Amino acid sequence: MSWRVSRATRPTDSSERLVFFTDAVVAIALTLLVLPLVDLVPEARSSGLDLEDLLRENLGELGSFLLSFAVISRFWWAHHQLFRHVSRLSGPLVAWNLLWMFSIVFLPWPTAIITAYEPSTGTVLLYVGTLVVTSASLTMLAVTVHRDAALSVGRDRETRDEVLGSATSLGALLVALVLGSLFPGPVNYKALLLLF
Amino acid sequence: MSWRVSRATRPTDSSERLVFFTDAVVAIALTLLVLPLVDLVPEARSSGLDLEDLLRENLGELGSFLLSFAVISRFWWAHHQLFRHVSRLSGPLVAWNLLWMFSIVFLPWPTAIITAYEPSTGTVLLYVGTLVVTSASLTMLAVTVHRDAALSVGRDRETRDEVLGSATSLGALLVALVLGSLFPGPVNYKALLLLF
Amino acid sequence: MSWRVSRATRPTDSSERLVFFTDAVVAIALTLLVLPLVDLVPEARSSGLDLEDLLRENLGELGSFLLSFAVISRFWWAHHQLFRHVSRLSGPLVAWNLLWMFSIVFLPWPTAIITAYEPSTGTVLLYVGTLVVTSASLTMLAVTVHRDAALSVGRDRETRDEVLGSATSLGALLVALVLGSLFPGPVNYKALLLLF
Amino acid sequence: MSWRVSRATRPTDSSERLVFFTDAVVAIALTLLVLPLVDLVPEARSSGLDLEDLLRENLGELGSFLLSFAVISRFWWAHHQLFRHVSRLSGPLVAWNLLWMFSIVFLPWPTAIITAYEPSTGTVLLYVGTLVVTSASLTMLAVTVHRDAALSVGRDRETRDEVLGSATSLGALLVALVLGSLFPGPVNYKALLLLF
Repeated sequence: MSWRVSRATRPTDSSERLVFFTDAVVAIALTLLVLPLVDLVPEARSSGLDLEDLLRENLGELGSFLLSFAVISRFWWAHHQLFRHVSRLSGPLVAWNLLWMFSIVFLPWPTAIITAYEPSTGTVLLYVGTLVVTSASLTMLAVTVHRDAALSVGRDRETRDEVLGSATSLGALLVALVLGSLFPGPVNYKALLLLF
Repeated sequence: MSWRVSRATRPTDSSERLVFFTDAVVAIALTLLVLPLVDLVPEARSSGLDLEDLLRENLGELGSFLLSFAVISRFWWAHHQLFRHVSRLSGPLVAWNLLWMFSIVFLPWPTAIITAYEPSTGTVLLYVGTLVVTSASLTMLAVTVHRDAALSVGRDRETRDEVLGSATSLGALLVALVLGSLFPGPVNYKALLLLF
Repeated sequence: MSWRVSRATRPTDSSERLVFFTDAVVAIALTLLVLPLVDLVPEARSSGLDLEDLLRENLGELGSFLLSFAVISRFWWAHHQLFRHVSRLSGPLVAWNLLWMFSIVFLPWPTAIITAYEPSTGTVLLYVGTLVVTSASLTMLAVTVHRDAALSVGRDRETRDEVLGSATSLGALLVALVLGSLFPGPVNYKALLLLF
Repeated sequence: MSWRVSRATRPTDSSERLVFFTDAVVAIALTLLVLPLVDLVPEARSSGLDLEDLLRENLGELGSFLLSFAVISRFWWAHHQLFRHVSRLSGPLVAWNLLWMFSIVFLPWPTAIITAYEPSTGTVLLYVGTLVVTSASLTMLAVTVHRDAALSVGRDRETRDEVLGSATSLGALLVALVLGSLFPGPVNYKALLLLF
């Protein structure tokens, strides 16, 4: 099945349904981030915590929620900017988009891990490593769109500068990954927001 | 990455994908409200509650569900009314819309809190405070759309009256926030529905 | 805010965004139905149930899942058929659609209740009563669309027969509600599927 | 209601809203797969597991998540390829699409089962059996679209080869079902990915 279908993915397919599907997936991943926060409330209540204690205890969860909300919405916007140039599909475009989508759907798991565990080489590798996959697949998408003019029929071509911008973000995340796993002690995930 | 991308957000981008993405996020937040209710049923059953007791015990949860359903759908409609005037995007429009979306995604958490905890200054500040953020970001969206004619290309401009309507709602919520946190005892969240 | 906005809902608004939003809500409600089933699996495993016992014990949950999946997708289809005639919005249309959407979002709760509790007057009233609200709001939507020609600009008008079909379904559900709450013992929720 | 509505489903209905609704359902099913993984993290933490143990213990869950993510996204893509040929709806098309959607929404449950239970005839029948339903309904959709030219008005017709491709996938899954339930011991679900 795969090969025949892959061949069928000639650049005459419209990108509209893929973009829509991707948006729905991102919207759900973004909204599901609040569920772990919601689950903690009745537990805290039944174990006798008052509101002040609940807020203090859940500060970490609130921080991780905010961080991942910011990260996912930022990546969605970068995806939006890229796909302004895309009117058609090709096999590689669909494949890289799938990897990008996978890393977004997966992110709630590393988010739960950095919430529950103290910063260590392992937690940094998991969380920042997932973001590296997101950023790398976005960069590959940018390269694919830049190289194949057939993907941008009827729209502005993506410029070389835009591809470089995406690659620069990836580079910064890679540096964060190396530094964070070498010196996990003082790591501050919020510093990731500076990268965007 | 951010600056370059922000510059790229010139008002020639179509608003369609942003509106779609926002709608998907709101639809999910709206539907997730029922999950805490659903989770309580098997627990109640296994602790031997009969149906009447379940309904009596979950009256608070049902009330919070109804309130937040009404609040979110009302805000969605106000967002819908505003975006009838919007055909293009700008950086500030996207930023305020992100804050609006954040407050909607976040709302299930304050909802869980007003369900589990008695009314107090803290619960009022959390719940009504979140609504103030929603309303304030919507008002800023209204101001942004009213001021920048380029955002309404090919559509009716937003009138001054519509901006004032949005600001009036914000004012009423601010009054509710102050009154509710000063006199949390007799607070009745249902009174919030009168504001809409 | 409400009145001004209501007046603004003149039938010149396109129905597209409302239809899209409604679809997203229904899609989520439909998909969330599987969550209680999924939650039971690790519990069953850790309490030492083998696969055969798990299937036997969860037969009720599987039945409720199938029933509510069938009910929601059937109602979605009826909504789809109705909105083929709708190109514009009005205040009453939006209000009845909101009530319809509310009953769909709410349905997972009565579904959890008929799963956990034996059939009784109370469970029948809750589950079938929710369906009566869905069906009644759909009938009111049908009446609204039939009466106001401005809502169907550029599309086929809804016929009197289609309104009657919707009203007949509502009548059948009302009969089911009365019979089911009078004789809850032998009630069989699967019989509801015959109504569709 | 049903018959009248079914008659109304003449091939003059646009396929757009059905495709959109199906996409939203698939996107949600895909994203919900991560929830069981997320739920395990705080539990592991509170029972004193360190990160390494958590990763080792959750390897099975990670594998099932990856498998079902790959399976669902692969089936979505096959659906996408098929519906490029579809511009109109008919009763059988809607019915087979509903069965297809049902099997996708249901998949998280067999996924939870192959995660919690050792491979056995029963687990293989449940998981691979669900995929057989997905694949069979997709093949029936392909046959329906191939036979009824009215469904492809204004688009390329589906070729006989594309129908055969879909049927071949179904055949391979049936072989996997038979082999897997006869020899469940050494079964390796990851082998399923080779089928795609």
